[in-house]
Amino acid sequence: MNASSNSLALLTDLYELTMAYGYWKCGKAEQSAAFHLFFRKSPFQGGYAIAAGLEPVLEFLRSFRFETEDIAYLATILGNDGRPLFDADFLQYLAELELTLDLDAIPEGTVVFPHEPLLRVCGPILQCQLIETAMLNMINFQSLIATKASRVVMAAQGDAVLEFGLRRAQGIDGGLAASRAAYIGGCAATSNVLAGKRFGIPVKGTHAHSWVMSFDSEPESFAAYADAMPNNCVFLVDTYDTLQGVRHAVEVGQRLRDAGHRMVGIRLDSGDLAWLSIEARKILNAAGFPDAVIVASNDLDERLIQSLKFQGAAITVWGVGTKLVTAYEQPALGGVYKLGAIKDESEQWQPRIKVSEQLIKTSTPGIQQVRRYVGGDGMAIADMIYNELHPLPETCVAVDFQDPTHRSQFDATVAFEDLLKPMIRRGDFVGRSIPLDEIRNRALAQLQQFDRTILRLDHPHRYRVGLEEALHDLKAEMVLESRQRSKAGDEA
Amino acid sequence: MNASSNSLALLTDLYELTMAYGYWKCGKAEQSAAFHLFFRKSPFQGGYAIAAGLEPVLEFLRSFRFETEDIAYLATILGNDGRPLFDADFLQYLAELELTLDLDAIPEGTVVFPHEPLLRVCGPILQCQLIETAMLNMINFQSLIATKASRVVMAAQGDAVLEFGLRRAQGIDGGLAASRAAYIGGCAATSNVLAGKRFGIPVKGTHAHSWVMSFDSEPESFAAYADAMPNNCVFLVDTYDTLQGVRHAVEVGQRLRDAGHRMVGIRLDSGDLAWLSIEARKILNAAGFPDAVIVASNDLDERLIQSLKFQGAAITVWGVGTKLVTAYEQPALGGVYKLGAIKDESEQWQPRIKVSEQLIKTSTPGIQQVRRYVGGDGMAIADMIYNELHPLPETCVAVDFQDPTHRSQFDATVAFEDLLKPMIRRGDFVGRSIPLDEIRNRALAQLQQFDRTILRLDHPHRYRVGLEEALHDLKAEMVLESRQRSKAGDEA
Repeated sequence: MNASSNSLALLTDLYELTMAYGYWKCGKAEQSAAFHLFFRKSPFQGGYAIAAGLEPVLEFLRSFRFETEDIAYLATILGNDGRPLFDADFLQYLAELELTLDLDAIPEGTVVFPHEPLLRVCGPILQCQLIETAMLNMINFQSLIATKASRVVMAAQGDAVLEFGLRRAQGIDGGLAASRAAYIGGCAATSNVLAGKRFGIPVKGTHAHSWVMSFDSEPESFAAYADAMPNNCVFLVDTYDTLQGVRHAVEVGQRLRDAGHRMVGIRLDSGDLAWLSIEARKILNAAGFPDAVIVASNDLDERLIQSLKFQGAAITVWGVGTKLVTAYEQPALGGVYKLGAIKDESEQWQPRIKVSEQLIKTSTPGIQQVRRYVGGDGMAIADMIYNELHPLPETCVAVDFQDPTHRSQFDATVAFEDLLKPMIRRGDFVGRSIPLDEIRNRALAQLQQFDRTILRLDHPHRYRVGLEEALHDLKAEMVLESRQRSKAGDEA
Repeated sequence: MNASSNSLALLTDLYELTMAYGYWKCGKAEQSAAFHLFFRKSPFQGGYAIAAGLEPVLEFLRSFRFETEDIAYLATILGNDGRPLFDADFLQYLAELELTLDLDAIPEGTVVFPHEPLLRVCGPILQCQLIETAMLNMINFQSLIATKASRVVMAAQGDAVLEFGLRRAQGIDGGLAASRAAYIGGCAATSNVLAGKRFGIPVKGTHAHSWVMSFDSEPESFAAYADAMPNNCVFLVDTYDTLQGVRHAVEVGQRLRDAGHRMVGIRLDSGDLAWLSIEARKILNAAGFPDAVIVASNDLDERLIQSLKFQGAAITVWGVGTKLVTAYEQPALGGVYKLGAIKDESEQWQPRIKVSEQLIKTSTPGIQQVRRYVGGDGMAIADMIYNELHPLPETCVAVDFQDPTHRSQFDATVAFEDLLKPMIRRGDFVGRSIPLDEIRNRALAQLQQFDRTILRLDHPHRYRVGLEEALHDLKAEMVLESRQRSKAGDEA
């Protein structure tokens, strides 16, 4: 089940390889193309996402090559005629292939919005296609989980959120990648030890019900745990009767204190967490443990945390598992990877568009960049997607994506940042690998740039994302042209 | 991001290690325990699940050991007092640890029901705990996806279902493990080439919209594809205007036929799939391509397929992605791992129970086995969970799990099979590794043993699962005892 330590070049949909074969056969393999990876809708009914998954993408690209055994496997794939699908010459071409692409990317931890390219890939179209599926897999999932985590952390209003999801995660990497992304989104720690080792994320955890059940009584089990780890006791109190469990914790906590140690706290994992936490707090305070933390777990998510906070629950640390690592409410970000332009025989870029009956599914042509305008107070004002193939005017006009009657003007005095940064040029890494803690800090800082009305869990205020006027006009023109072509075809 | 090829011993929640440390410190590390892994509710509002994930669990156990670098990492983990959480002696113990457990498991591809142990682990309690999280991760996810796939395949009523989910899967292994489990559940092929290589699953795929967009016109793009792979053409027809796309496919199909080849078919990926498929069928038939397949994709799941079938859609192959590989409707199976018994100092097994205010969350004590009674017609009659610590009477009485007033009797003439099979004894593998195709066939055959009313997508007829009478009585007694103990504690 492990993804092997070798290249993951075969981590792809077969159609990337059949298209590659087609491009190779018809002499288009080296034709330059520009693709953009973006999502169309913010997840969880919210208004934003946190970009994540770039570092794994860079690792994937760095190690990309077809190993001998990959080629041997590809040679065994048969077509519908029962004969090998791929020519031996093409497989030889793959065996020798080295990526020579350019990659620009929005750094991990950046707040991003629908239609904004998180990655832009330029280079030989054959290569652009071969890396599509794996990049979508990594960016889709990690951005989804980082976004979910940021929502959960927001709901916890400054309390620590611990990610506890490994046992319910979607596979091994569904756990590891989720732990990484949840940390980017603001979680304080994970239960996942391998994620701790791989990514340097703090790890947390004490004991399960089975610890208590393996002793003849709950007090005996707490005492044994305290003997083993006197400074690291968070007692799980709900194996039998929760409030009695709290009293048993207090007894052991008092013995710990007498011996010069400190009970860290208790954990609730079932029942009415609002009521139980309040009652537990009373018992702890009355016994002289006002500092003992109350950890809660049990199918928590941002909405339940918000509700518990509203009810005055005395919970100070939130253990969030299944609902976070699977993004239970919406377990996939529908990121796509679309061709924006291709070079013709005279080496001129030609914009390309995929039309759809649904406007939201019509792609944007050109070679795109995202400009974020920022006010004097440091708050983000609006984002504008523009086409690098056309020079920008002195004063830019952004046509709102959802409401084209709304246009914003930005003259040269408005501060901005272009979000896509050069990462790879002709196959060579030219960017900077950002340590995970820096990515996490970036995400926390980025969220400060947006009004809380934009970040709220439901019915958020919409942050303006527009197309630069010339790009908007180009897109409108291309849609029209495509419709006319269809009509002409129908009439023909 | 890859799970490395080394041991995955650190793929665990930290609390398994702190409990292990506690057991080691208080001299209980070698105490024998029996744990059961089970789920409490069938997923997707359905009435059954397909067991999957055992082979990866066996691989995990076979390679289980703490590597030098794992131990080095564990030595860096600090407790709340800023000092190393684990003693060096304990880490040395882990470094030398070899698993000596017994494992019994229900084979992959078996139809299973809530409360039935899919795995039973017996042996030193420290070891039982260390392997908990990884086993839950693998069994939960693969059983979830195998079950989802079986529902999708059922809805397709004999049409081929292709799994296309990698780009939206939850991480690398979220894709690989999903491809494996979807195949077990009855999918015919996957788009995931690495899954094809690793597991021997057939791989399928032709081209994307970007292929069409990279040419100056759709007919040109189809012609180029046909030149490259004349016997493997499934043309994606909805890049611009779908029915015009079908007509373009027909033109190229005719040229292929004239040259002695055969167009395989077309693919629809957007729009009204019912209407478009019917119109496309007419065009194909009128042009002399009655055998051309119509593949459909675009956010399909079992309910949408059922609806399209009901509408008379002319789709013959179903490409299912996101909704299948993430089990979108319910992205986690809530499998748990509970202590059923522990050996006391006189080496006698003592049953253990975890009570809960919610009856469904109260665990079952004992060392459990699952007996499936089968009628003369080969159809499954009912399942009975019994306690191997007690001999069974001649005539067994099964007390229904959900309705204890319902009791079924099975005398010695009723055929049965005990579902948990010995897999590992004292650390040695004694079972049989089952090839994936055999597992898939087993799942298909198993489903034949259950009435369609039990398997239907919603509001299924409930298949009876009961506790053997003595086990039922033991559980009831232990719940009562626990409640009385709580009450006594409250009064004390």
